[in-house]
Parts: sequence; C-alpha cells; structure tokens
Amino acid sequence: MEVKVIRTVPEMQSWSSDLRRQGRSVGCVPTMGYLHAGHQSLIRESARRNDRTVMTLFVNPTQFAPHEDLSRYPRDFEGDCRKAAEAGAHVVFAPGVEDMYPSGYQTYVTVDEVSQGMEGAFRPTHFRGVATVVLKLFAATRPDVAFFGEKDYQQLAVIRRMVDDLHLGVEIIGMPTVREPDGLAMSSRNVYLKPEERRQALAISRALFAAQVAVKAGMTDPKRIAGDAAAAIAEAGLSVDYVEVREANTLAPLAVVDRPARILAAARIGNVRLIDNMAL
Amino acid sequence: MEVKVIRTVPEMQSWSSDLRRQGRSVGCVPTMGYLHAGHQSLIRESARRNDRTVMTLFVNPTQFAPHEDLSRYPRDFEGDCRKAAEAGAHVVFAPGVEDMYPSGYQTYVTVDEVSQGMEGAFRPTHFRGVATVVLKLFAATRPDVAFFGEKDYQQLAVIRRMVDDLHLGVEIIGMPTVREPDGLAMSSRNVYLKPEERRQALAISRALFAAQVAVKAGMTDPKRIAGDAAAAIAEAGLSVDYVEVREANTLAPLAVVDRPARILAAARIGNVRLIDNMAL
Repeated sequence: MEVKVIRTVPEMQSWSSDLRRQGRSVGCVPTMGYLHAGHQSLIRESARRNDRTVMTLFVNPTQFAPHEDLSRYPRDFEGDCRKAAEAGAHVVFAPGVEDMYPSGYQTYVTVDEVSQGMEGAFRPTHFRGVATVVLKLFAATRPDVAFFGEKDYQQLAVIRRMVDDLHLGVEIIGMPTVREPDGLAMSSRNVYLKPEERRQALAISRALFAAQVAVKAGMTDPKRIAGDAAAAIAEAGLSVDYVEVREANTLAPLAVVDRPARILAAARIGNVRLIDNMAL
Repeated sequence: MEVKVIRTVPEMQSWSSDLRRQGRSVGCVPTMGYLHAGHQSLIRESARRNDRTVMTLFVNPTQFAPHEDLSRYPRDFEGDCRKAAEAGAHVVFAPGVEDMYPSGYQTYVTVDEVSQGMEGAFRPTHFRGVATVVLKLFAATRPDVAFFGEKDYQQLAVIRRMVDDLHLGVEIIGMPTVREPDGLAMSSRNVYLKPEERRQALAISRALFAAQVAVKAGMTDPKRIAGDAAAAIAEAGLSVDYVEVREANTLAPLAVVDRPARILAAARIGNVRLIDNMAL
C-alpha cells in the first residue's frame, strides 16, 4: 500500500474534516521520523482502532535547544513513508518548517508543573516546544485519537495534561516502550551509538529492570531506589543526568512507593543522550 | 426568544458538533457579561452571519492580576441572558470557574511580541489569561467565526495572532467600538464611574479624536501625536498609563505615520481604569 503525502496544513485539515463528516474516525501518530519498531507499534494500534491513520513527520525545531542535535537529527523520508505504509498509515503529514513556524510566529503553549524537573530541568524549553507542536499537529490533523510512546513518559504526561486542560477532545493513548532483544529502549538516537557505546547503553534499562525487581522485593524508599539505579548506570561509564522515582500519573515526587510509580532516567554516552523509564 | 443556557464543556461541545455535522455555521461571541450595546452589536453581527450564535459568559480569573477588580467585576446574569436573546443569541455558555480551571489546571498559551507593551506592560499576565481562555472557549464552542470588539484592540491582535499561529480555523471578526452619544467608549467598567468622573472620562475619546484630526491635517510624528493626546488626558485630571501610536496590524512601533496606524490609550480615574483606541 502507498501512503498519501500531505505537505500543508489546509490540505491536511480538509482531508481530515471530510472524513470526520462522513463519520469515519481518524487516528494520529506524531513522530519526528526515522521510524523504528516503536513508531510502527503506534501506527499499528492506530490502524487497528481507527478508520484512517495519519502519521505526522516533523522534526520540530522548537523542542530542541540551540546546542542540541536538531541539525544532525537522523532523517530518511523515503524509508519512513515505506515503514508507515507497512504498519497501516494512510497519510504521512510532513509540513515544512515554514508552514509550521512562518515568519512572525509567536504563540507557545506551556504546561507548568508536569514539565518541571527531569527532562524539563535539563531541556528548559523542550516541553514548551512539544506542547506547542502537538497542539498545532492536532489542529492540522483533527484526530479522534492520538498515540504516543511511553518511552517519552514525561512528554506523554505533559500532553495528557494539555489535552485535558484545553478541552481538546482528543483521546490520548500511551503505548509500551518497544525494546531491542537485549532490553535497550528503541530510539531514533540509538543510531548515533558506536558499538562500544551501544554495549554501555544497556546499563540504563538493566538498572531500571533491577529497580522493578527491588520494588517487587519490598523496597519502598524512592531515594534509595533511584540512587541504586543511578550508581549502576554511572558504574558502566555513563554520565547520569537524573534518575527519579515519581508518582505514575502526575509525576509528583513521592515519599514512599506505596502506589503506582515510575522510575525515569536520562544519561549521556559521549555526545548521545538517552532516556528510559519503567513502571514500578 | 429564550436563550438556552449551557453550563458544561462537554454539553457545549456536543451541541456545537451536532450543528456543524448538520452543515450549520456557529458564531461565537466571548464576553465577561454585564452586556452593553457594544456586546449586542457583536451578537447581532454573529446572528446575521451564522445559523446559530453562542455568547460565552465567563469572568475569567486568569486575566486579572491579584490587585485588580475580579471580585467586584459587575455581574447581571438574568439581564445578560435577556440582552443576549434580544440581540439574537441562541445559547449562553456560562461555565463555572471549576469547569474551566479544575484543581491541577496548569496549561497556558502565550503570544509573545504582540502581548508586549501597552496593556501587556501594565497587566503582565493579562494576555496569557486572555489567550488561554479564548482557546478554551473555542475548544468548547467549536465555532466557525468569532466576534470581538475593537475596543480591546491589543486583545484582538493577540487573538488573531494566536488563531493564525495555532491553525485554529476560526475566522476572527473585529467590530467597531460602540460609543455613548458623547463619545465615551462603552465598557462594563463605566458603571464604576461617579458623575464627575464620568465627565472627566470623556477626555480620553476627545484626545483620540483630536489625534485623528491632527493626522488628517498632516501630522506624522507618532511621538508628538501620542504626547499631545497624553497631555490632554492628564490635563483633565486623569492619570495616564500610556498613549501609544502603533502600526495598525502588528502593533509594532512606528517611526512615521505613513501607513494604517492606531492610537491606543489607557488612563485611570480614581480606582477605575479605562482604555480606548482609534484608527489613524
């Protein structure tokens, strides 16, 4: 099957509005491209639940800080269209930067508390960029449902909160992180890793799995759980940005792990920054 | 004719979606209530252009600073419903504060450049509150078209910019300021004025009309035009917050009045703060 490529917001809006007027449901899978099996699992789930699925492909400059990897972010438009079609997408919406942020652009969405700490501490304008572009992509694709990976867990919490707060009327589905056979969370950024770094990177998911085991065994002190995981990641030669244990829904800090919680981590190997998280 | 009163976001959304599915157009007139002839002119224009008109009535706390007049803002729900019906509204959407800003609410929309200076300088979080509530009211009422008075000219510019930037797909219509026979711009806040203050307040519109005359007579220096108006307003005993001459669409500063421009003023009489503006 071939996907239809749509490049402009008005064309995207009218495609989606026409379908919805016919009573058909539209699912949306926002991506920055360079698809891996994780993205494809989102597209498959959308295709299973909806009459039509739009994958958006936009490397969003407003969620990168000036020193980050925007210019070298990996791209493969032809490959992405093929993989999107394979997984069941009907449309790839791939607007240009000038369509999304024309000259004079100046409107931003912020989601306050849930954006703070963790990724928000290390990437101060990141979630402002994410919330803004997701709102714009929803305005363009007008979906009934949208699918996001739990890999970016804080992002998912930010988007859920924004959608509720602004009454956007889009159902948000979070899908489990897809992992390599050895446990490494799939990420478009894994392509940056040299073979030795690829081996080191495994320390992150191993430390989080170990935290799950520790909590199942009765450990309840979030500081100790996070501290043990951070030590294990550092031990493998990674530079730890943070490891935090938080309440699963609000991402609020926890004094004791006595309810659904999440452990979230970010670490750097050379120039590559990786994140991961798991349920506790 | 009676208006239908809707109190909750889901009920509002389904009312509007049903109509739009039937191919009917919905106009929206956002207000904070205490209707005067200016609000009614917006409702009449909406009723003329659309199959159905929703007036929203919500005194939005997020656009008031702590020291401002939120708690004493004038209210008259029964009178407002009657005046809205008279002017042709079909629905009054009057959500509660707890519907619009439930516990944990944390999402805000900012429109950067156009919110700066003038009202933005004197009311630093005002336009963040305005942009946020208008986005939420649009999400609730799902209109084709929305109507705003030019009386709040900078607000109108903020909303236009937000709607364009976020691809909201709502047509924004600005309607001329409705004035009392002597020239005072109609405002719900005029009710605060004591008789002597009511006479003094006239200095604002008089100074702006004089600026129009001066520009027609060939004056092109924005500093001098604004300075003359500010002096005339201060002369009448008002405390001037600002008088500015700006480019009419972007509200950017101007070196010479050689294109469509706007003069905008704010001044205080006792506890009452009034604004006005005119085309140059």
